[in-house]
Amino acid sequence: MSDLISAKRGRPGYDQRAILDIAVAAFNEYGYDATSMGALAARLDLSKAAIYHHFASKEELLELALDEALTALEGVLAEEGALAGAAIDRLAYVLRGAVQVLAAKLPSVTLLLRVRGNSQVERDALTRRRAFDHMVSALVLEARAEGSLRSDVDARVVTRLLFGMVNSIAEWYRPEGLEDAAQLADDVLTVALDGLRPRS
Amino acid sequence: MSDLISAKRGRPGYDQRAILDIAVAAFNEYGYDATSMGALAARLDLSKAAIYHHFASKEELLELALDEALTALEGVLAEEGALAGAAIDRLAYVLRGAVQVLAAKLPSVTLLLRVRGNSQVERDALTRRRAFDHMVSALVLEARAEGSLRSDVDARVVTRLLFGMVNSIAEWYRPEGLEDAAQLADDVLTVALDGLRPRS
Repeated sequence: MSDLISAKRGRPGYDQRAILDIAVAAFNEYGYDATSMGALAARLDLSKAAIYHHFASKEELLELALDEALTALEGVLAEEGALAGAAIDRLAYVLRGAVQVLAAKLPSVTLLLRVRGNSQVERDALTRRRAFDHMVSALVLEARAEGSLRSDVDARVVTRLLFGMVNSIAEWYRPEGLEDAAQLADDVLTVALDGLRPRS
Repeated sequence: MSDLISAKRGRPGYDQRAILDIAVAAFNEYGYDATSMGALAARLDLSKAAIYHHFASKEELLELALDEALTALEGVLAEEGALAGAAIDRLAYVLRGAVQVLAAKLPSVTLLLRVRGNSQVERDALTRRRAFDHMVSALVLEARAEGSLRSDVDARVVTRLLFGMVNSIAEWYRPEGLEDAAQLADDVLTVALDGLRPRS
């Protein structure tokens, strides 16, 4: 799908990428259901026909944005650091990668995190997101089995608290803000793995 | 405002509390803006006039629900355990209390967490929520100053990650689910303070 996006770049006026970015911003601000193609066209100062020249439907805009976020997250799982080594190191690699994807693709990840399954496109995205979550859960279980993660907290609760911490970053992260994505990823790993109490 | 709620209890048919509960469930499911009084009336099988007998407006339903969540959270800060003792213990007390309020008042806290400031009622709720957040931030700073919280992670990032972990519980917690609120609060404190890596 990212081929589709780049193929039409460079058209006069808004290209496909710019329309998609503005659509995703509007979906995040007003909600996907509440954002009509008419409202999008007004925001872009384009005719609806001009948008339909690039995209078959509002749902295609949603689908492309969700695919972008999911492809980036799934990409982390396919990298060497997520595949080889001790489970605790692979888990740390994936958490770090998830924070960096979130920071690099904040609008589309924010949209993904708000999807509730109201249509087939949303349900397909949720299925892919759950598959990602399950891979991380499996890493948590492996890390417990190898003795590098504490086992006195339910593994499913651990996984959810980890995702809760990572995903919540979408609510406040700004690229020009408190700290960059690499530092933020370090902080998440420090809090999650080592805890806030100083170790003696 | 909770006096207002109990004062009209026990009316024939739906009482004020039951209407509020169903309204909050609908706001959480479809979004506040997308839920009309007509749709609420249909869901309750009541006339709109019957709802207006209990509530002046849809906004009053929102205001009561947000007040309920905020009053409960603010109540934690006023308890003895939040006021006396070492900062680390007060911080732990407040985090535990926030998890328990979230579990006990899941629908109204969920609604609170989704408020974006689209009206005066929402902005007032955000102001109260920020005041709560600032009290917790102050506890984080106090705990760092007393040496009981690590100081190598930015305090604002720490506060946000803590809230991220706690607030994310609203996305998946079910009273009949994985574990009860007290156990969950223990787990949050274990992960946040001691970390997932076993301490030797």
